[in-house]
Amino acid sequence: MPEMHPQRWGDPSRAADLPESALELVELAFGSRERPAVAGARPPAPDLADDLLPGLRTIVGAEHVLVDDATRTLRTRGKSTPDLLRARAGDLDDAPDAVVRPDGHGEVVAVLEWAAEHGVAVVPFGGGTCVTGGLAARRDGFAGLVSLDLVRMKRLLAVDEVSMTATLQPGLRGPEAEALLAERGLTLGHYPQSFEHASIGGFAATRSSGQSSAGYGRFDAMVVGLTVATPTGSLDLGSAPASAAGPDLRQLVLGSEGAFGVITSVTVRVRRAPAATAYDGWRWPSFAAGADAMRALAQGGLLPTVLRLSDESETALNLADPSSIGSTDDPGCLMITGYEGTAEQVAERRSAVGALLERLGGTALGEEPGQRWLHGRFDAPYLRDSLLDHGVLVETLETATFWSDRERLYDDVRAALQDTLGEGTLVLCHVSHVYETGCSLYFTVAVRQGDDPIAQWQRAKAAASDAIVAAGATITHHHAVGTDHRPWLAREIGDVGVRVLRAVKAELDPAGILNPGVLIP
Amino acid sequence: MPEMHPQRWGDPSRAADLPESALELVELAFGSRERPAVAGARPPAPDLADDLLPGLRTIVGAEHVLVDDATRTLRTRGKSTPDLLRARAGDLDDAPDAVVRPDGHGEVVAVLEWAAEHGVAVVPFGGGTCVTGGLAARRDGFAGLVSLDLVRMKRLLAVDEVSMTATLQPGLRGPEAEALLAERGLTLGHYPQSFEHASIGGFAATRSSGQSSAGYGRFDAMVVGLTVATPTGSLDLGSAPASAAGPDLRQLVLGSEGAFGVITSVTVRVRRAPAATAYDGWRWPSFAAGADAMRALAQGGLLPTVLRLSDESETALNLADPSSIGSTDDPGCLMITGYEGTAEQVAERRSAVGALLERLGGTALGEEPGQRWLHGRFDAPYLRDSLLDHGVLVETLETATFWSDRERLYDDVRAALQDTLGEGTLVLCHVSHVYETGCSLYFTVAVRQGDDPIAQWQRAKAAASDAIVAAGATITHHHAVGTDHRPWLAREIGDVGVRVLRAVKAELDPAGILNPGVLIP
Repeated sequence: MPEMHPQRWGDPSRAADLPESALELVELAFGSRERPAVAGARPPAPDLADDLLPGLRTIVGAEHVLVDDATRTLRTRGKSTPDLLRARAGDLDDAPDAVVRPDGHGEVVAVLEWAAEHGVAVVPFGGGTCVTGGLAARRDGFAGLVSLDLVRMKRLLAVDEVSMTATLQPGLRGPEAEALLAERGLTLGHYPQSFEHASIGGFAATRSSGQSSAGYGRFDAMVVGLTVATPTGSLDLGSAPASAAGPDLRQLVLGSEGAFGVITSVTVRVRRAPAATAYDGWRWPSFAAGADAMRALAQGGLLPTVLRLSDESETALNLADPSSIGSTDDPGCLMITGYEGTAEQVAERRSAVGALLERLGGTALGEEPGQRWLHGRFDAPYLRDSLLDHGVLVETLETATFWSDRERLYDDVRAALQDTLGEGTLVLCHVSHVYETGCSLYFTVAVRQGDDPIAQWQRAKAAASDAIVAAGATITHHHAVGTDHRPWLAREIGDVGVRVLRAVKAELDPAGILNPGVLIP
Repeated sequence: MPEMHPQRWGDPSRAADLPESALELVELAFGSRERPAVAGARPPAPDLADDLLPGLRTIVGAEHVLVDDATRTLRTRGKSTPDLLRARAGDLDDAPDAVVRPDGHGEVVAVLEWAAEHGVAVVPFGGGTCVTGGLAARRDGFAGLVSLDLVRMKRLLAVDEVSMTATLQPGLRGPEAEALLAERGLTLGHYPQSFEHASIGGFAATRSSGQSSAGYGRFDAMVVGLTVATPTGSLDLGSAPASAAGPDLRQLVLGSEGAFGVITSVTVRVRRAPAATAYDGWRWPSFAAGADAMRALAQGGLLPTVLRLSDESETALNLADPSSIGSTDDPGCLMITGYEGTAEQVAERRSAVGALLERLGGTALGEEPGQRWLHGRFDAPYLRDSLLDHGVLVETLETATFWSDRERLYDDVRAALQDTLGEGTLVLCHVSHVYETGCSLYFTVAVRQGDDPIAQWQRAKAAASDAIVAAGATITHHHAVGTDHRPWLAREIGDVGVRVLRAVKAELDPAGILNPGVLIP
């Protein structure tokens, strides 16, 4: 898989400037501005005593301990807009001192023991797609910081086609895992926007949720087993699909973001690769009407495989295809419904869902909007790069709440963003995931970049996060905590919850070497 | 609700001796034996310093601190067969010194603070239906032991009919919770065999699973929020249906069996009470054929609301109705399928499931077996009492595994039980719950009682538990750990898993007063 450019998202060969028509719209929306300068980026020199490296080389082999600038640059931070802005400004201060590439559980254990012995901080690295600062660990008080790169752990370890489970190594990227499963006619069905680059270990460590989660479930719901290397021993969890043998420790590892240990294998429930698929568009007169229809589907046990609903602004703008802006007078709110399975399953579910949506006031738009969504589903981060190139600050944030609080949460977060960023701010939103009891809200924000765009965004993000917690919602539905959400996590789970996380951390990682400063308030 | 007799299960008015025909069959199966003697049971005198009680009375009111023999007897242990045998032998050594009945979260917090200050062990008590020794805490090293009875906490605190959630106090018994929800046309749909007596707090603390869990989900899957009182502070968890805000701490409380804190409210997903129901019987030529059909339903996304399958022995014996034994020459294996929902949902699902089951080789038996199951579904523990009266040792145990290990697990557990208990042992089994990746196995064992029936059962239970762990299955799918499963839990989650549980316990309950000796190895 191609490495991502340190200052941009995704496959460098797919980067493209905005077409002229889109540029005109950008200037119309945000005013004109010269392209911000992009500095050449070079990380600081490694700050890890030379006499520590031979021990590491003994564990993984000399060729898998890398200290060159290019490799360290590629393992610096994740892909949030502030991450990209920092890299574009030439700031790579969070670069690791070395990148170490263990192969297998035993080598990971040995690296962690080495790190604990020498007081070296360790940042597990999978796909590098984190957007919440989860790859920017604190290094103060440590003898150095190494990136534990899982790039060599890309095997499909086991498949059980009777139980329909597969055991995967954590370094497999989304498409790599799907390709291995496809050889057996199987699929995970996990398609977050980061799918093309994110890793299996990352999906588990961050409780990822995909665009098909209505049908395939969140990643945490797919996991039936985990092995984890911690600095003080290994965990091997998952003896049954469900159990009453005490607290579910799998659910303590899921979402632990590398702070408790390194996930070295994940056993997931798999499904037969769908023989048939269909994706439709539906128009709703308002966001509220569309959301009520989603609720009816979820509570009626009639969910499609894919279900998302854009609000009026997102529908009108349609970020993934700027050339279509304004093409419809009153586009209302666009819903995408997708169906995957056997031909019979797809036909039945599509017909039942369609009947209910029509009864609730939806207008069928046919397959064209569904196909358009399908083909652009992983492209938004490329568009962000292009807009950043032209001085437009673009970022996303997301949350989830119970149905009865959806409208308040939507209003409060929009108001917080608009009030902080001021006139000319575009705030778009879609419902990305639904449950019987509630849904997520995914916001995209675009505004003309000011002189200090990082501070500009941080103010807006803080205001939105305050609004989220004040509304009783979760600070993150599928982007994880990282360093960015830490202060609000403390408000969400309270002092006692924080003490529980710290106690587990102290037990498993008493030297505190794993992802210091990430997750735990 | 009527209190249960200390030496028997359930409502004393429903206790009945076996009919003459059944007695003959019992003698035929197990040989004749005189009825074992039942001793009068009286607990030891309270062993809690008198000067400690006024503090407790100040918190909850004098009338809610009870030290009389009758009340303490009713809060002694749970309802496993060894529990009943001990009580029948006059042994009430595990009786608490006092029973305290707080009302509300604040009073529970105050009781725990009082207990921590004075070194008094606390056993939270809901329905008293535990069958794994979870109510028999260690008292050595403590100034006394009190039963924290949740009987006054029986309110429906909130209902949100948009989000379809309800917030319940922990002392509500199953029927009480359903009656309150039924006033709003709602249901939980949680029907474990203990339903008539078990409590909402107990369902959560033990990860209960019900007979309709194929349709309504396990209790742990219904929970969206929890409040918990610990000796060092309170937890208020659940800000969204799902979240990526770190590890899911709700899943650490679920299954914690009172060892981390006392659950003071539970917010659950509810559904509309079903307008229509239907329950059918199906015959399968073998247990394996029926299990394969269950797997096809689970993996095809076509589960009924109720799905259970008895093996050949259980089908032939049909414990709930001994008079029917031998009424059919080759009954094969009986499957029960139940459907609940709107009339349309029931009709559609029933037809789709029926078509698949016929295609897979099942024979439809019509509604009679379904209705018989429905009406006897909570009766097995009464039958156990009657058999114990006649010197037949009856007990159950359960586990779960992945589909590909089902047959081995079934064979190994049966062999362990037969080998340990010897000739004339009846071992019955049914699949009680199914998942896409696996299923549970629920065993019922009956054998002529020996001179020391508790030791007799403990040997069999240990052999079965060894077989379960050796097969890589879970030591309990829905009966929880208690004290009985503790040694095997350690093997299931490993040293590191045990250290995590201990670390959380030490953080939340540093004095170790909560259910000492329960759950944590």
